[in-house]
Amino acid sequence: MSKIHGGNIFQFAHEQRIEPYEVIDFSANINPLGPSQRGLDALNNQLRYISHYPDATNDDVLNAIADTYGMDKNQIIVGNGAAELLYAICRLPGYTGAFVPAPGFSEYKEALEASNIPVRDIFYRPREDDNGKPYFEVPYLALETFAAELKGQDGRIIVFLGNPNNPDGTLLDKAHIRTVASMLKDANSLLVIDESFIDFVGNDPLRDNDQSMRSLINEFDNIIVVHSFTKFYAVPGLRIGAAFGNEKLISHLHQYIPSWSVNTLAQAYTEAALNDVDYIKRTKQELNEERAFMYNALDAIEGITVYPPSANFILFKVNREDITANTINENLKKDNMIVRNCDSYVGLNNQWVRIAIKDHDTNIKLVEKLTDILKV
Amino acid sequence: MSKIHGGNIFQFAHEQRIEPYEVIDFSANINPLGPSQRGLDALNNQLRYISHYPDATNDDVLNAIADTYGMDKNQIIVGNGAAELLYAICRLPGYTGAFVPAPGFSEYKEALEASNIPVRDIFYRPREDDNGKPYFEVPYLALETFAAELKGQDGRIIVFLGNPNNPDGTLLDKAHIRTVASMLKDANSLLVIDESFIDFVGNDPLRDNDQSMRSLINEFDNIIVVHSFTKFYAVPGLRIGAAFGNEKLISHLHQYIPSWSVNTLAQAYTEAALNDVDYIKRTKQELNEERAFMYNALDAIEGITVYPPSANFILFKVNREDITANTINENLKKDNMIVRNCDSYVGLNNQWVRIAIKDHDTNIKLVEKLTDILKV
Repeated sequence: MSKIHGGNIFQFAHEQRIEPYEVIDFSANINPLGPSQRGLDALNNQLRYISHYPDATNDDVLNAIADTYGMDKNQIIVGNGAAELLYAICRLPGYTGAFVPAPGFSEYKEALEASNIPVRDIFYRPREDDNGKPYFEVPYLALETFAAELKGQDGRIIVFLGNPNNPDGTLLDKAHIRTVASMLKDANSLLVIDESFIDFVGNDPLRDNDQSMRSLINEFDNIIVVHSFTKFYAVPGLRIGAAFGNEKLISHLHQYIPSWSVNTLAQAYTEAALNDVDYIKRTKQELNEERAFMYNALDAIEGITVYPPSANFILFKVNREDITANTINENLKKDNMIVRNCDSYVGLNNQWVRIAIKDHDTNIKLVEKLTDILKV
Repeated sequence: MSKIHGGNIFQFAHEQRIEPYEVIDFSANINPLGPSQRGLDALNNQLRYISHYPDATNDDVLNAIADTYGMDKNQIIVGNGAAELLYAICRLPGYTGAFVPAPGFSEYKEALEASNIPVRDIFYRPREDDNGKPYFEVPYLALETFAAELKGQDGRIIVFLGNPNNPDGTLLDKAHIRTVASMLKDANSLLVIDESFIDFVGNDPLRDNDQSMRSLINEFDNIIVVHSFTKFYAVPGLRIGAAFGNEKLISHLHQYIPSWSVNTLAQAYTEAALNDVDYIKRTKQELNEERAFMYNALDAIEGITVYPPSANFILFKVNREDITANTINENLKKDNMIVRNCDSYVGLNNQWVRIAIKDHDTNIKLVEKLTDILKV
């Protein structure tokens, strides 16, 4: 129970002696619009069914996911949050090793360790492009080299990549991924792409999101794309996630998911929220505006390096020795604000901070506070 | 997804072209009083927190469980329904085989098969006592014999037993269980006792329930007791269960449970419901009355053998060749009623029916219908 994640507002509130709803939480990456009203109406309507088992087939929510993302129902499995699906994936038999991105979401490693699969970090390196813009380099070359070495050997690996990767927001490139997937396929290995934040990326309708690797499951039977509904649809408290993969893989994953794993309220909320087209549109519009605003505002602050964001969170590095993520959080405390100290990410340390993008007024407050804290 | 369980009112309603809430569901064993009002108030109050991650430590609900059942907090783990905990238990390393009760809850086998552990059925035999009363005999002797054979060998097994066992309602005997647990301990083996329905048994306060094997975890480090909160507290749609075991076992189980596995509404509801002393008392009173009423009423019907119940469900066998569980369900359909056809239970067939005990008026309706169906 010592796992470190963003977003424990209950603990923070307890320490600050305030109510949890008073916390201004920049540490968890949740849609700033909050939940979909259509979703909430459906949830409230479903409350009458909590004394019944959830529909174990998940039929209605699977149909809604299939429609929204343009996938075949047999290519989809849902679970109790993306986390449950990561654990299930790591139970697929025969894998002898794994690569996880560093920095990256900590549950990949937890899920692999639960399955006794040895894990190695593959490092995303912070670089600067020709215009001096910072970015993280995806280690395609390292992956290709390793996949080539593995071919013909006994070992089989699982590679995890985030798209966008958390906490840095780096997106994957489809041509590169095709090469990696193909070489992994030759080595009987699996590529898991975590797209928990993909719906925040770009401005197209969800099913037309060109940055998603989802459609590659039709080309490669060794790709699984993991998807979350709790970030974009703002219900991490409810728990529901999905995975896309070819029918055989999905059918195999079912045996690791207990019956009734998705609760009845999460089913009802998600089905309705996926159909709340206006909410989805407004979310993407607001996010696109606020992302640009926050990136520019943070980038204008001296003493930090801000990495260009793609989704609903922004990573920056503090370039001063006298200020750490802890200093920042200590200073934000009196305003009940909290940001994500990235010292628990492999490859980063307490000079790194991740913030969620929230509504405009709240974002401005944070920028003002950070400007103040980082004043020379 | 072809697992067969009681309680899919959504499918039944769809087939009958009615709303799910119109189904009179005798196939799922849920508290006839419905949810606790204090629990529902807490749930409604917690709705404002669905945009935040659940408290990953589960602190508040663990404290409530510890208080209610008189256990140490370190001896308790919670999960997304008892089912998730069964799957986690089966991931404990080193077990080479397992026994499950036949008849018994199907998820034991599903969880074991997900871990590739070979399963054998141990049969509960239907008997008659000296007064001609039917009962199921717990296969203590078979278990003791097998445990004795296993001692000194390489194999290690997991034995599952229900207390009461589902669908027959048979309770375990503490002296016998001490012997079995001790012999299994000598064979480095594990005894898992599923007490999902134990709170319905007897009339004592929950922590003083003498029929529970919970306290044995203080004597035996190879016993895990699984507990559900969704039957007694009437929220199978919400998902939450617990397991009791010694600190080391519980700490080991944590690694198989993903972060935030219990959703925030289930946490809030359960914490409050466990403190709803009046609701708990009323449930036990009503259940005790209705159990006696239903047992006597069913026992008076010709052509069926009714097994004395201990919890909130009753098993009976139809002794006529012209009537099966299917016949009964076909006849009940027009009144939107459904009972559990036990043909998917190993050791039983479609002559066996399990019914949940509901409120008095609804129970009377079922008795009348069954009397009618079984009229010669």
